[in-house]
Amino acid sequence: MKCKVCRDHAVVDVRRHNAAFCGPHFIAHMQGQVARTIKDFKMFEAEDRLFVAVSGGKDSLAVWDILLDLGYDAVGFYLDLGIGSYSGRSKDAAVAYADRRGAKLVVRSLSDEHGYTVPELSKLTGRVPCSGCGLNKRYEFNRAALEEGFSVLVTGHNLDDEVATLFGNVLHWNVDMLGRQAPVLEERSFESIDGARPVLVRKVKPLVRVAERETAAYALLRGIDYIVEECPMVEGNTQHRYKEAITLIEESSPGTKQQMYFGFLKRAAHRFADESGGGEIVACERCGSPTVRWGETAEAVCSFCKTKGSALKRKEEGYVPSRRPKRRRP
Amino acid sequence: MKCKVCRDHAVVDVRRHNAAFCGPHFIAHMQGQVARTIKDFKMFEAEDRLFVAVSGGKDSLAVWDILLDLGYDAVGFYLDLGIGSYSGRSKDAAVAYADRRGAKLVVRSLSDEHGYTVPELSKLTGRVPCSGCGLNKRYEFNRAALEEGFSVLVTGHNLDDEVATLFGNVLHWNVDMLGRQAPVLEERSFESIDGARPVLVRKVKPLVRVAERETAAYALLRGIDYIVEECPMVEGNTQHRYKEAITLIEESSPGTKQQMYFGFLKRAAHRFADESGGGEIVACERCGSPTVRWGETAEAVCSFCKTKGSALKRKEEGYVPSRRPKRRRP
Repeated sequence: MKCKVCRDHAVVDVRRHNAAFCGPHFIAHMQGQVARTIKDFKMFEAEDRLFVAVSGGKDSLAVWDILLDLGYDAVGFYLDLGIGSYSGRSKDAAVAYADRRGAKLVVRSLSDEHGYTVPELSKLTGRVPCSGCGLNKRYEFNRAALEEGFSVLVTGHNLDDEVATLFGNVLHWNVDMLGRQAPVLEERSFESIDGARPVLVRKVKPLVRVAERETAAYALLRGIDYIVEECPMVEGNTQHRYKEAITLIEESSPGTKQQMYFGFLKRAAHRFADESGGGEIVACERCGSPTVRWGETAEAVCSFCKTKGSALKRKEEGYVPSRRPKRRRP
Repeated sequence: MKCKVCRDHAVVDVRRHNAAFCGPHFIAHMQGQVARTIKDFKMFEAEDRLFVAVSGGKDSLAVWDILLDLGYDAVGFYLDLGIGSYSGRSKDAAVAYADRRGAKLVVRSLSDEHGYTVPELSKLTGRVPCSGCGLNKRYEFNRAALEEGFSVLVTGHNLDDEVATLFGNVLHWNVDMLGRQAPVLEERSFESIDGARPVLVRKVKPLVRVAERETAAYALLRGIDYIVEECPMVEGNTQHRYKEAITLIEESSPGTKQQMYFGFLKRAAHRFADESGGGEIVACERCGSPTVRWGETAEAVCSFCKTKGSALKRKEEGYVPSRRPKRRRP
């Protein structure tokens, strides 16, 4: 196996591109893929201030690394979810990387900001940890980005992540989620007497053209110490099974994942747009974030505030769950 | 495991319904599922004459059996594809079933009707056998149904078949095929000076609510001798891999297949309707079947006639393929 570029010994093959690369040319290939994605989807401009959600894993550290190398003003953001020593080790990886690169990292903790950890939230709500975790990350990433004055939030979702999500969404035909599955979600503002008030920061996924094993290879080749272990709460996660199923097909037909994702964006995504479901988008009564109100007299409280409210109420009351959190039927 | 109905010893479990049945109640359950499907999708009425495409396999014999038991006027149709001794054994199974039930079976052969077998066609066109086979079956089923005076063509496609097709269609976002994937495809007529001339018979799939292993169990319990072996030309068929991948998920989450298929019909199928792709639907210049013409001056010849034409031309010229048929990239 020889490098496509220099014919030197190749260390990484990318079967769906029918190509292989030596270390330096693979790194250049990855940077090129990310630069192309940023350009093709008009993700941001050179002057944008980027806020990179960093978990300490390979994908988020890789995207941060590439953005810094491409010369962007990219600040990291680590949210401590309070998942025991796993969160500690994740944070260490993020901090160590920032130190090594001399890059700025903003750190917040869910516990400080909202009064619970992910395991606590799961017990208090009786829902699987991944569900509350996703909701809180989405909320807090956006809130922190707005508060810290960033125009763009970057996440490390790779092609495998997006395909697994897409697969889950078509398995259950979650038409509203299909309408929102895009490599760029635009900023949203509410008009107020003081002018437009941004409520959702622009969100972008520059790794959508890159497979999971490629970000792992990139991190390895770049000597990035990322946290290899999986979140201990992820067991039985449906997303994992979706990845396995699609990977079965990818193995015999390299390129299937890329075809599925980019085919969706090109030929199908627009068919699911404007899926407000008949509700009206208004500001949440408690936090001001956008939420959907179902009818004139209905409450306008976003999912985050509802979940937080009931969790904290139960916490105050000294609630003890009588059984294990329910498994969500996938 | 006890029968849901009579609490007797159960012989078949249906995990997605969280139910198990003894032999007689499983048979009744299957009949009920099919009767419900016919009603829900308004597939046909008591007075319709049904033409059942019978391959000799479990699904088509099961659907024919159930339709006869439900009291419908259902005539079988066996198309000999000329796949060596496999076709002979398939035909034997269809004929034996018809004899046992005292039911009428129409038999035609692709070779007599069009001048080639499926293996010959594959060699003459250089395409995988499944592709030409599908095209010819669709064409000849419809042609025979119209010529023999039937109003409805019934096929034995089960839930697993439909889900695998759907999965393939969303893997590649074949938007035109998504627009046509339905349990009922309506009859189509062309207006002529003699009045409306039917060109596409109504096509229905009464087994869409039934899984593959359920039709196998049904055939076994009913003592139907079906051909168990798979078509010898099917090796590497992509549909098989799609079934495997989805079955991985079904095993840990029973009901996923049903959710995917019926969720599609309910929430997504209409988004892909009217996908003419900008072409105009006209009668094929050679056979009169509907086909899409791409622009005023373009040829209006259907895929079947194009394929048949070039295959027979090559056959006349004594064409010998220089290599194995190409594998279609899935």
